[in-house]
Amino acid sequence: MYFVPRILYFVFNKVRIDIITVLPEMLEGPLNCSILKRAQDKGLAQLVVHNLRDYTLNKHRKVDDYPFGGDAGMVMQVEPVDRCIEHLKSERDYDEVIFTAPDGETFNQKMANSLSLLQNIIILCGHYKGVDYRIREHLITREISIGDYVLTGGEIPALAIADAVVRLLPGVIGDEQSALSDSFQDNLLEPPIYTRPANYKGWEVPPILLSGHQANIDKWKYEQALARTQRLRPDLL
Amino acid sequence: MYFVPRILYFVFNKVRIDIITVLPEMLEGPLNCSILKRAQDKGLAQLVVHNLRDYTLNKHRKVDDYPFGGDAGMVMQVEPVDRCIEHLKSERDYDEVIFTAPDGETFNQKMANSLSLLQNIIILCGHYKGVDYRIREHLITREISIGDYVLTGGEIPALAIADAVVRLLPGVIGDEQSALSDSFQDNLLEPPIYTRPANYKGWEVPPILLSGHQANIDKWKYEQALARTQRLRPDLL
Repeated sequence: MYFVPRILYFVFNKVRIDIITVLPEMLEGPLNCSILKRAQDKGLAQLVVHNLRDYTLNKHRKVDDYPFGGDAGMVMQVEPVDRCIEHLKSERDYDEVIFTAPDGETFNQKMANSLSLLQNIIILCGHYKGVDYRIREHLITREISIGDYVLTGGEIPALAIADAVVRLLPGVIGDEQSALSDSFQDNLLEPPIYTRPANYKGWEVPPILLSGHQANIDKWKYEQALARTQRLRPDLL
Repeated sequence: MYFVPRILYFVFNKVRIDIITVLPEMLEGPLNCSILKRAQDKGLAQLVVHNLRDYTLNKHRKVDDYPFGGDAGMVMQVEPVDRCIEHLKSERDYDEVIFTAPDGETFNQKMANSLSLLQNIIILCGHYKGVDYRIREHLITREISIGDYVLTGGEIPALAIADAVVRLLPGVIGDEQSALSDSFQDNLLEPPIYTRPANYKGWEVPPILLSGHQANIDKWKYEQALARTQRLRPDLL
């Protein structure tokens, strides 16, 4: 076994996520605060927003048109999307070109773990009634849904995927917020947690947590985690 | 049957969502663009962000503390959350006080439909390692998870819930983007959709969509929707 300096692991594990959207102003705030900002400041992640309208050739920077076959709703056109993705691919290789769609694979923690090992990811945010299906057939490598509900566009799903992935990169969150003890990482929900005051309006913290007997406390936590998982999410066990 | 003027239906169906967060700057952009902005401009929805730090009594506006029992991570304290929710409840009645948690009920379109019939909703965004469990026991009426993945905070889930709910309110999206034909509303995924050009780089639109025979087109769409649902999401059928 060779010794790999930890700093190199960090370098190799840097993730770049390019997000293609018609609403860049929707992503600016969320991508530049909290964990996502910290990860970028530390050089561990790069999050780049691309305005799809910059890739149109028409004067009005229009990216949608009426659907063939007389449906309601506007459809995002293949041309600007193809042009934007081609442009990005000319600059670097991409591991995945993700489209966020309600009928894609359901996103989960395992998928977040595997995406966090990639280097370059494109996320295309759909909008309007949907995107021209040829985009999905020819340009997209993976379709992901964040859940069984309909949202106005792919921007919130893109944020969810970026957040879930970036926080898993080594060095992004410190020990104080260890990702390893999160729900789903060990297929158990978390036990109840409490902080000061020990008594608030008569609502009391379980006495065992104040006992100082760490072995008993750990046992209690495990039992609580198990009991909560059995009650709320037996499918995880 | 009485005649209820449509305008009254709009008035009764207005939804107010109060979001409690430690990161108000994360929500500003997304809540003020696209459909969420349009809904507010039309007076159909009211989305109000509350900075939890405004409800602290300490000088540093601290809202978190170390967990009892020696865990990693900081825990959101019950006191400011209780004070904020009490303040809101003193102004109006709330139908639900929602906490977004990875171990809550899984959010879906049916839940979005039912939330869209309510008047006043609070969404508390968790942060740090989690919230003091007494908040969940005493102050929260409903815990919702947007999916089986871990996010840094409840802000992105709050946006997802707000977007999914608000777009269902009558008058928010026009016929051009009819919510009724969306995926999940009829338990079928949507058929492929296409727009101009009919031929892009040799990638062609299915000829039937250009045929002009609406009955055949509708039959094709239904068959495609059914086939896609059978292939991708047989659980919906």
